[in-house]
Amino acid sequence: MNSLRVAIVGSTGYGGVELIRLLLQHPKVTIASVISSSNSGVSIAEGFPHLQEILSDELDPIDIDLIKGKADVVFTATPSGVSTELIPRLLEAGLKVIDLSGDFRLKSGELYGQWYKHKAAEPQYLERAVYGLAELFGEEARGVDFISNPGCYPTAAALGLAPALAAGWIDPDSVIIDAKSGVSGSGRGLNLSAHFSEVNENFSVYKVNRHQHIPEIEQTLSLIAGREITVTFTTHLVPMTRGIMCTMYGSLNGDRTEEDLIELYRKYYEGRPFVRIRGKGKWPATKEVAGSNYCDIGFAADRRTGRLTIISVIDNIVKGAAGQAVQNLNLMMGWDEQTGLRLTPIFP
Amino acid sequence: MNSLRVAIVGSTGYGGVELIRLLLQHPKVTIASVISSSNSGVSIAEGFPHLQEILSDELDPIDIDLIKGKADVVFTATPSGVSTELIPRLLEAGLKVIDLSGDFRLKSGELYGQWYKHKAAEPQYLERAVYGLAELFGEEARGVDFISNPGCYPTAAALGLAPALAAGWIDPDSVIIDAKSGVSGSGRGLNLSAHFSEVNENFSVYKVNRHQHIPEIEQTLSLIAGREITVTFTTHLVPMTRGIMCTMYGSLNGDRTEEDLIELYRKYYEGRPFVRIRGKGKWPATKEVAGSNYCDIGFAADRRTGRLTIISVIDNIVKGAAGQAVQNLNLMMGWDEQTGLRLTPIFP
Amino acid sequence: MNSLRVAIVGSTGYGGVELIRLLLQHPKVTIASVISSSNSGVSIAEGFPHLQEILSDELDPIDIDLIKGKADVVFTATPSGVSTELIPRLLEAGLKVIDLSGDFRLKSGELYGQWYKHKAAEPQYLERAVYGLAELFGEEARGVDFISNPGCYPTAAALGLAPALAAGWIDPDSVIIDAKSGVSGSGRGLNLSAHFSEVNENFSVYKVNRHQHIPEIEQTLSLIAGREITVTFTTHLVPMTRGIMCTMYGSLNGDRTEEDLIELYRKYYEGRPFVRIRGKGKWPATKEVAGSNYCDIGFAADRRTGRLTIISVIDNIVKGAAGQAVQNLNLMMGWDEQTGLRLTPIFP
Amino acid sequence: MNSLRVAIVGSTGYGGVELIRLLLQHPKVTIASVISSSNSGVSIAEGFPHLQEILSDELDPIDIDLIKGKADVVFTATPSGVSTELIPRLLEAGLKVIDLSGDFRLKSGELYGQWYKHKAAEPQYLERAVYGLAELFGEEARGVDFISNPGCYPTAAALGLAPALAAGWIDPDSVIIDAKSGVSGSGRGLNLSAHFSEVNENFSVYKVNRHQHIPEIEQTLSLIAGREITVTFTTHLVPMTRGIMCTMYGSLNGDRTEEDLIELYRKYYEGRPFVRIRGKGKWPATKEVAGSNYCDIGFAADRRTGRLTIISVIDNIVKGAAGQAVQNLNLMMGWDEQTGLRLTPIFP
Repeated sequence: MNSLRVAIVGSTGYGGVELIRLLLQHPKVTIASVISSSNSGVSIAEGFPHLQEILSDELDPIDIDLIKGKADVVFTATPSGVSTELIPRLLEAGLKVIDLSGDFRLKSGELYGQWYKHKAAEPQYLERAVYGLAELFGEEARGVDFISNPGCYPTAAALGLAPALAAGWIDPDSVIIDAKSGVSGSGRGLNLSAHFSEVNENFSVYKVNRHQHIPEIEQTLSLIAGREITVTFTTHLVPMTRGIMCTMYGSLNGDRTEEDLIELYRKYYEGRPFVRIRGKGKWPATKEVAGSNYCDIGFAADRRTGRLTIISVIDNIVKGAAGQAVQNLNLMMGWDEQTGLRLTPIFP
Repeated sequence: MNSLRVAIVGSTGYGGVELIRLLLQHPKVTIASVISSSNSGVSIAEGFPHLQEILSDELDPIDIDLIKGKADVVFTATPSGVSTELIPRLLEAGLKVIDLSGDFRLKSGELYGQWYKHKAAEPQYLERAVYGLAELFGEEARGVDFISNPGCYPTAAALGLAPALAAGWIDPDSVIIDAKSGVSGSGRGLNLSAHFSEVNENFSVYKVNRHQHIPEIEQTLSLIAGREITVTFTTHLVPMTRGIMCTMYGSLNGDRTEEDLIELYRKYYEGRPFVRIRGKGKWPATKEVAGSNYCDIGFAADRRTGRLTIISVIDNIVKGAAGQAVQNLNLMMGWDEQTGLRLTPIFP
Repeated sequence: MNSLRVAIVGSTGYGGVELIRLLLQHPKVTIASVISSSNSGVSIAEGFPHLQEILSDELDPIDIDLIKGKADVVFTATPSGVSTELIPRLLEAGLKVIDLSGDFRLKSGELYGQWYKHKAAEPQYLERAVYGLAELFGEEARGVDFISNPGCYPTAAALGLAPALAAGWIDPDSVIIDAKSGVSGSGRGLNLSAHFSEVNENFSVYKVNRHQHIPEIEQTLSLIAGREITVTFTTHLVPMTRGIMCTMYGSLNGDRTEEDLIELYRKYYEGRPFVRIRGKGKWPATKEVAGSNYCDIGFAADRRTGRLTIISVIDNIVKGAAGQAVQNLNLMMGWDEQTGLRLTPIFP
Repeated sequence: MNSLRVAIVGSTGYGGVELIRLLLQHPKVTIASVISSSNSGVSIAEGFPHLQEILSDELDPIDIDLIKGKADVVFTATPSGVSTELIPRLLEAGLKVIDLSGDFRLKSGELYGQWYKHKAAEPQYLERAVYGLAELFGEEARGVDFISNPGCYPTAAALGLAPALAAGWIDPDSVIIDAKSGVSGSGRGLNLSAHFSEVNENFSVYKVNRHQHIPEIEQTLSLIAGREITVTFTTHLVPMTRGIMCTMYGSLNGDRTEEDLIELYRKYYEGRPFVRIRGKGKWPATKEVAGSNYCDIGFAADRRTGRLTIISVIDNIVKGAAGQAVQNLNLMMGWDEQTGLRLTPIFP
């Protein structure tokens, strides 16, 4: 059987390097090209010694012809703004694309401009991109040639809220998302807010009400609920490397027990292997999904206040980026969703 | 000038050890007795080598007569349930008491029984205890002989919410408190949930809607707002040792800008040196108060959702325990509130 | 093809849980029984929620007949002293055994008693156990029915020192091993020295000159060097979960450059896929092997002092425990050493 | 009484900010000017919100006349190479100087050039600088106008080795120093090696045999031993913010017990309040000196190998930088060495 040849643009970021880890153990795929806008000609193992004797390919420059010659599918794990220009050219060259940047997630170019502070891609490409959140919109991604991979926070938030919103069990105007992320979410770039001495033994909050993932979350939740939804969204930085937790609040419509919610969610995610619903009185922790593609969800329903608390966790680099991208590759190629992704979380 | 002689019951817990650190640099106080229910006769520096050549007193047993002979004021940093019995005896012996346990914070013994799962202290002592949250109820503590020191979460939550609630700027029925704490908050006891390999590189949630600090928070906020308040309260464990952040949400009554809030809070806390209000668009981080008695507060008002986000941080062992207890000692003795507490946060 | 049925005694410790993670992805193995001296009848996923929907087998008690009925090979990841009694019974029942405890690593029962402070196993079993450090004694393990899995520190230390000692390039009387380990090395037991608030933001030293791995290291190095070797060995606790680094010092015999050493080591470990030798001026870090079975080694030769510094790193739970045990299973069964162990380190 | 007016050049680095924390509680000093080569005119509290309402002075530029007008003593916490030029001008202007950079620690300009890779200061200033390691060379610093503050590693290493070397108890040719530091040691600059996601849950080694502190350590030890000493020195990065441990090895001359060593060291450091010698079988941990000016030392003497292991710990920013600088200020001014430095370590 022939292996699918894949290329990774942005292979020297954390998302790119995690793609390498996952694709190396994917039975149907060969990494044909690791690409970086800088350092071309240097072995990827030079900057990432953990890859020594595993993958020592030289970094390729971003060159459409070169990519076309080497690969069938391209992952673009590029900073926001780069995919906007690059992906149309990749698609025109006949390549299939899975984009891990935020450039094609919003259907509205106007919203994109507002939140990302630069120009959106051409509308035709925004339209063409299939938003690859399989657990909510799954079959849409099968067989397409261009998938936009969801953001880390939007994945954790939407998976946690969708069933309750779809069922009308919580008031769509009451949704508050208190999100916490490990530091790897902000990438490998050098910044005081990722400096060990500033982050370690510290808990901080950032971009309150201003995070560019807000419109993405609202777009998904509005689709699910069938009406416009506006959310309060706060992001915090946790002194750890990997993991996201979303603690979400909504006012319950009617009297729902935790058992009701567990049943609702298990039914909603039936056949979706990467979502795990915790039992009554159990809540997930980020370490329980570390290194894996799972999203784990738990509940607390409070009679005193009439509010529901939903807790969802993911590994931000796996289900929140590279793992979900491989899941989308599997769907794109018509393979079993779990191919290469049956990863047991690494504990402790 | 004669030094005030103080005794610390529970001196081998984290609250007790921090009291030692703070009282050692207090100009008007002498540590007369360090007391522990076990290990009496052993030097405190044996179990806490950081105290070598600083304080090597032998641990005293819990013995009312002994304490009475040695001390004027007693700090009780004991597990919940111990103070219930001990403090009446200390008071009857004519000692002044500052209690760091939760046993005398709730005025209602019934609520105490419900949330703490054991019997409350005698009503007369619950009544007699002055709840020592100086920034909200300050002058009440001056000159009294029995102060109940507030809990760590209730301190951070109430200081963050009080001015907005008192002013009627947020809907009292809309309050959600998403709280995060370092691991030291759960003490020095051995427990899997404090095991390094389980906590490190992990973010978890616990006691959702069930934390015993809920009625304490509600008691304070109800007093401030002049009506019954019920809150949603979630507690998370952060992989760090010290620090609490409360991220709090409320629906704004009317259109209030962040400038309005900053002005409101600065006026409310005027003359209260331990509360610092951040400027517009600035939010505090836990490390910015580490080792100090400050509570720092910041805001985000969101026009899109009509909600206010309030962020407050404290060092859970200082303003959330030992530091506030020393502040209460200062008030009890009629001294300047800041005596021995002019601590610059330790950074980084 | 029939899967090999394996049982894990001590499956609720960190070594046991890591064995589960590795064996779940091993193509030739089925986990037939997870065994614990306590909690039998409870699902393993109850205590380890990261295994939910992956492995929910109930824990079996330690019962030789039960094990015999279910399994072909038994991993014993038990505390020191338990294997001593248990393994003879497993072997007599015709089971193959790979022991992760320290009970069968020392050939001398007397030395065992001296360092482990309890009675050694019967001499015949000490003799029968094959010490499974494949990179040094590889073919000995092929086809045997009882393998003693090396300790974490001895693995990192011996792999780092063996080639230089075998070649006579360093003075055998000059060896100093300064070792550092993550906290998981001390297991899941509750102990103040694993309490997050005591370990975090702390670096400490323990068991100086007294660690029970000392005679194991000396036994291996003496075999390699062909003469008695005594080492200075210091162990430190690093505020991290996984990883061991050994920084090792020896006086160079003759003038050896780093290039010489790299060549020597690459030749020595030729055909051994789990040892990776860093290039000149490069030294490994623990994160570069995290989650994988690699041992990475680097060098610094100092003309000023005539000393060689060797740095080796492993993941203490993988190459230092569960991964090496699976490697030994592969050898025992005559399979390719890397079966199920082609693990890319997880980074970051 | 008039306060001494001090200026801090480089006040926005970690050393500078810690000087501020310490000097704010110094009873005889006023911070007259906080100076930074950039950002002049901006409040120091802008970049360091932990200083809000404590110190909000605007940053001054580096301007000799300005400094001369405002201050009596200047601390220079500047990157290596800057003090070389700046300090002669400060001295010529009649200011007293305590230099925290490495520019004036080596008496040999040639050695400086070799290890620091840029040109040394004028010989007359190298001569004039008094090396301020009070516990070894104490009285030399009294009353002088220019003190060079020792490096962090050299402080921990020399304090740990000096008494044994001075007594001739260890072979001067056998000294190996295995040093470990928290990340703050490398400052606030942005660098991949201080990036949280790369450092956290990682233990690494750097600059093996090449650290610029090597000649400083050798200069001190040679003075103490009365002969040339060459050491092997390895530096490691610990995933924590503060703290240094040096684990040091030497061959014992004669049979010395741990009791002998404890007695030797206690006598050697008699009257030196910042060195604490641990009791038999006790070794210090970095957290036990955190935030304080202590250097704690412990021993293990090994009959099996004839080697001595010495363990010393300091807080790298306090005794390794700012605290020692204040100690030197006290000596320079003829004050009690401990003025403003009676700091209890912060635990946990």
